[in-house]
Amino acid sequence: MARERRGYRMKAVIKKKRTKGMAFVDVPIPKIGPRDVLIKINAASICGTDVHIYDWTRWAQHRFTPPRIIGHEFVGDVVKVGDEVTRVRVGDRVSAESHLTCGYCYQCNNGNSEVCRNFRLLGVDHNGTFAEFLALPEHVLWKNDQDIPDEWATIQEPFGNAVDTVLSEDVSTKTVLILGAGPIGLFAAGIAKACGASLVIISDPNNYRLAISKKMGVHIAVNPRKQDLVQTVLEATHHNGVDVVLEFSGNNQALDQGLKVLIPGGRISVLGIYERRVNIDLNKDVIFKKIRIYGVTGRKIFSTWYKTSRFLSSGLVNPGPIITHQFPLKDYEKGMKLMKDGKCGKVILMIHDEHKRR
Amino acid sequence: MARERRGYRMKAVIKKKRTKGMAFVDVPIPKIGPRDVLIKINAASICGTDVHIYDWTRWAQHRFTPPRIIGHEFVGDVVKVGDEVTRVRVGDRVSAESHLTCGYCYQCNNGNSEVCRNFRLLGVDHNGTFAEFLALPEHVLWKNDQDIPDEWATIQEPFGNAVDTVLSEDVSTKTVLILGAGPIGLFAAGIAKACGASLVIISDPNNYRLAISKKMGVHIAVNPRKQDLVQTVLEATHHNGVDVVLEFSGNNQALDQGLKVLIPGGRISVLGIYERRVNIDLNKDVIFKKIRIYGVTGRKIFSTWYKTSRFLSSGLVNPGPIITHQFPLKDYEKGMKLMKDGKCGKVILMIHDEHKRR
Amino acid sequence: MARERRGYRMKAVIKKKRTKGMAFVDVPIPKIGPRDVLIKINAASICGTDVHIYDWTRWAQHRFTPPRIIGHEFVGDVVKVGDEVTRVRVGDRVSAESHLTCGYCYQCNNGNSEVCRNFRLLGVDHNGTFAEFLALPEHVLWKNDQDIPDEWATIQEPFGNAVDTVLSEDVSTKTVLILGAGPIGLFAAGIAKACGASLVIISDPNNYRLAISKKMGVHIAVNPRKQDLVQTVLEATHHNGVDVVLEFSGNNQALDQGLKVLIPGGRISVLGIYERRVNIDLNKDVIFKKIRIYGVTGRKIFSTWYKTSRFLSSGLVNPGPIITHQFPLKDYEKGMKLMKDGKCGKVILMIHDEHKRR
Amino acid sequence: MARERRGYRMKAVIKKKRTKGMAFVDVPIPKIGPRDVLIKINAASICGTDVHIYDWTRWAQHRFTPPRIIGHEFVGDVVKVGDEVTRVRVGDRVSAESHLTCGYCYQCNNGNSEVCRNFRLLGVDHNGTFAEFLALPEHVLWKNDQDIPDEWATIQEPFGNAVDTVLSEDVSTKTVLILGAGPIGLFAAGIAKACGASLVIISDPNNYRLAISKKMGVHIAVNPRKQDLVQTVLEATHHNGVDVVLEFSGNNQALDQGLKVLIPGGRISVLGIYERRVNIDLNKDVIFKKIRIYGVTGRKIFSTWYKTSRFLSSGLVNPGPIITHQFPLKDYEKGMKLMKDGKCGKVILMIHDEHKRR
Repeated sequence: MARERRGYRMKAVIKKKRTKGMAFVDVPIPKIGPRDVLIKINAASICGTDVHIYDWTRWAQHRFTPPRIIGHEFVGDVVKVGDEVTRVRVGDRVSAESHLTCGYCYQCNNGNSEVCRNFRLLGVDHNGTFAEFLALPEHVLWKNDQDIPDEWATIQEPFGNAVDTVLSEDVSTKTVLILGAGPIGLFAAGIAKACGASLVIISDPNNYRLAISKKMGVHIAVNPRKQDLVQTVLEATHHNGVDVVLEFSGNNQALDQGLKVLIPGGRISVLGIYERRVNIDLNKDVIFKKIRIYGVTGRKIFSTWYKTSRFLSSGLVNPGPIITHQFPLKDYEKGMKLMKDGKCGKVILMIHDEHKRR
Repeated sequence: MARERRGYRMKAVIKKKRTKGMAFVDVPIPKIGPRDVLIKINAASICGTDVHIYDWTRWAQHRFTPPRIIGHEFVGDVVKVGDEVTRVRVGDRVSAESHLTCGYCYQCNNGNSEVCRNFRLLGVDHNGTFAEFLALPEHVLWKNDQDIPDEWATIQEPFGNAVDTVLSEDVSTKTVLILGAGPIGLFAAGIAKACGASLVIISDPNNYRLAISKKMGVHIAVNPRKQDLVQTVLEATHHNGVDVVLEFSGNNQALDQGLKVLIPGGRISVLGIYERRVNIDLNKDVIFKKIRIYGVTGRKIFSTWYKTSRFLSSGLVNPGPIITHQFPLKDYEKGMKLMKDGKCGKVILMIHDEHKRR
Repeated sequence: MARERRGYRMKAVIKKKRTKGMAFVDVPIPKIGPRDVLIKINAASICGTDVHIYDWTRWAQHRFTPPRIIGHEFVGDVVKVGDEVTRVRVGDRVSAESHLTCGYCYQCNNGNSEVCRNFRLLGVDHNGTFAEFLALPEHVLWKNDQDIPDEWATIQEPFGNAVDTVLSEDVSTKTVLILGAGPIGLFAAGIAKACGASLVIISDPNNYRLAISKKMGVHIAVNPRKQDLVQTVLEATHHNGVDVVLEFSGNNQALDQGLKVLIPGGRISVLGIYERRVNIDLNKDVIFKKIRIYGVTGRKIFSTWYKTSRFLSSGLVNPGPIITHQFPLKDYEKGMKLMKDGKCGKVILMIHDEHKRR
Repeated sequence: MARERRGYRMKAVIKKKRTKGMAFVDVPIPKIGPRDVLIKINAASICGTDVHIYDWTRWAQHRFTPPRIIGHEFVGDVVKVGDEVTRVRVGDRVSAESHLTCGYCYQCNNGNSEVCRNFRLLGVDHNGTFAEFLALPEHVLWKNDQDIPDEWATIQEPFGNAVDTVLSEDVSTKTVLILGAGPIGLFAAGIAKACGASLVIISDPNNYRLAISKKMGVHIAVNPRKQDLVQTVLEATHHNGVDVVLEFSGNNQALDQGLKVLIPGGRISVLGIYERRVNIDLNKDVIFKKIRIYGVTGRKIFSTWYKTSRFLSSGLVNPGPIITHQFPLKDYEKGMKLMKDGKCGKVILMIHDEHKRR
């Protein structure tokens, strides 16, 4: 790996301007500090966040400052380490927690580092993974289990979101309703099944995704535009409602329906992001029913990564059906197009893996 | 106690018609079945629910069917027991869980009997406590600790609401914001202090109630009409926000402020009832902050009663400052008037205790 | 079903004298009180406790007072109900919680009814299930899911022991060591697998049982007389040790080995009963390792029954390989002999099912 | 503070040889690496561990390798920081977690860093606090709350042990038995009271310490050599037993008594260290009673430190009565003598504070 040592340049997808679109360009390979690591990226995967930045949506305009290389999901090999680095070595195959946390705020010191007061987001506040090389502080790195192939290793970051949403509380023997069958909802279906949920119902208006959900083993896949979701859930649960709702849709109506079919004493975990403030019947749907609501963001560092790694390495969850497309880095826009059209599960960009594997 | 045995009549406050108001009348002493108990009521206390029924508000119109004796908080002496009664005896001084639960539904069998599928509410679905005598199934009775005087024993039902709201999670060393200084919010202040909260802030627009809160030991009492609540909380917490919010106000704006000053990773427990659906910023205030929301209703049967009893009998909480008024039963309207005017804490109706104690 | 109504007699296995052995005799069909139910037993299963009573071991001499019909695991049909019975009807197919709890002690009122202060044990303190008919108070009855066949319904009581042992804490993605491959250990293996354990190791000196454990999906089955258990576990866990130990063996040496291979911060749940006081290295194996130990007895009433029912009805656990033998009631001694010889999994006595099913 | 910059020497208590005793000597002020900090120690406190090292007990012979400066409890001011230090500054008043953890093992990454696989102990594996200066990696430092005086700041390390023992589970309204009234047991008494325990009983054969426990607010102080502990506890709890046992004595008989008076369904947390393996009736005292046992070691990093800081800074616990003696560093043997004689609570060595404060 001579290239990165001699200061060569690399290919990267960069958001340059405060308008729609991105650029596929040559930029210098990043430099590293004494506690940093340089990683040659094998594969990166596209998140909805990346599409938001591409499209320059309201959220992106508010949150993102160009120019910046985007992307926060990846797997790669360590090719260089700073002088003070102690935990990883050249040759380690790593992924990384995308929240670059401070490690010393109240939240970091109390087991809530995913809501670190000072965190910086990979691919948003720090140059990202849609590039041939990436520099990161060592403390956010995760050494990958050798039994997990690159195509799976890159999706551990969003998979971890699903882990925390499903496992806010134990789901064994529970009946579960999943709202939204995007990649994270689909991961959640596999996780809920693996952890002993006795019934998994999923709801999404996209039939392509519902078809994938069947491969993940859901018992009932509902298209709420064609079927009465509330009625379907009640019939499947002896009119008790479900024990658990997992909300990934970011849709207020879906949230409402989820709360309605949640059994008194049940819990809902919410990861989906809403376009605007939500409106709910807190009296009837939460208070009088003694409901617990869990807001979920990020991953527990690194306990969620251990769980994710074991789900994938032990065969408990096979994410294969969810990983529908692979492209070389330069074709990143093809992946984004598929995502906007809802014609895919997870899309992976093969970078240094491109030649090795395809 | 010859009167109840001979079928005499008794005084009671009854909601007779589907209009505003109530009547203070003579009715027959209730009969009991084989698993029931007849109780001579010493004292009963007025809840906001009773005022709603008096005023015939929208909630009452929807939920209440006259005629019915109202009231669900009390203390009294068992004067007669049915043939199949095994747990209580004549002479026992009892209060009761106001949720008459079925004992066999999914919720009852899974530790969530406060949201029993078939529960009936004392004073709403079953003749209540604003009367000289009361008939109840033995399984809802609570035998009172002898160290708790009648004036305190009658308020155990709403006190238990406060217990469950405060103790959804441990509060020791936590910073706590209480929204709403009605009787339950004031009980919560005492409980939070007794359980080791390191900072207790309370907010209410009613200065009379704020004055009581000071007697309960709150560190900061805020009138949000005169003071910036958000600013005050942030300043008192090194701009971290509070660890815990307890929402008793039923006010959407207060809820919003509570969520805003809640520390990332914190929890909010909500008992307050809202006039309409609520509107919240679920993304920013719950999801991105990894918040847990607990809907609270009723009491855990009977674990909450044990806790309540110990708070009151051991001296951990002195509810004295909150119990501001006592009236004979016939003057129940005076109490309701004070409550509507916000010129009281808890109002107690002294019934058979009237002669004994005043 | 005219027989039970006319006061006919029934066959039963009864412990008559304070010596080894039992008798298969005719006794009157039991009478029921107003809150009781009469059940025609379809199948009953033999527990180690029953063998202890047969053999008149020290435990039995201390705990059991003849004469008494033994047995506490069963499934049957309700054939008669008392006047005050409200929750079950003639024709319901039921099993029962074997702890006849009081319902009003501190433990019962605080979610710990399996350690009720006043409980009476079916088949020990109350005539048991090795008979054609059985009388029980309605409150201990469990209505069986129609998808669970009789052979599985009868083993729900010991299966529930396994549920509570496995699920003292969530096991998803965890590595698990099971000590003892008797029926409950084998149920535990199936449950741990169903709930997403990433590695399940079982240890037992009995090869017959280890062979069954393989059918339940364990990853590694160890005969500790032939293999070094500690070494095997450490090698299988990158020398971290296991996250969870489930102890069913009642063997002090096994307990010691379990504690030794338990990862710092891990937990052990103990159901096995020991011949004498145990001796452990509390400093090294528990305190310095920050271990949590859960004593497990009975089942949570009825939340464990719901879980059990769902494990069995949803296909999450197939106990088929563990149910190795079925006999008619009169051949109960054959079953007990097999159990003492370790040549079986669970042995079921087919009673009224005898003719129907075989 | 010129002295440490110019390489002067300092006074320190050092264990030099593998025999009983220590030496008060001049040694060089320690050097620091790029991520380290140099601290001028204001006060240090003596732990039982230090006495073990002095006396060269079996534990010490096994665990300790001379020469080494001892001591692990302290408060001091930062006087110099390494080039890579980012979180603390010269002038910060700090204490430190005594477990120098690795930060990357399985335990560290799963919220169990107090049982880090690679931890090194301050004053045992790393030069300690009985000296004028101390060098430590910045990541173990705790910045002290300005409202906590030095005499209290130095005891936060052992106080944190008490916090974790008391708060393994919520104690509010619980009845608590504390076994052992050494400094940590006494801290535990104050903490249990502050967190709403309804009854706190303490047991110790040392009357001096029982007298201090009274000042900490315990309800009942028992000398088990003069009074029947089991009987006293049962009488004080209506023969239910206590909800919680906190075991600090390291005495097998006390442990046995604690288990015996623990209510079925209760929990015991154990921090005390035993001279040899313990012998317990696991069947009767743990399994059949559904007991949870928590081994406690170290402190949660840093969540326990936050709690400790708030207990001390908010006035929730006043440790004043427990801090019985202060000596200059050179008189450390006087403190150790008092500890061996049981004639003290906590003994503090005033180092740079010596001149300032006495």
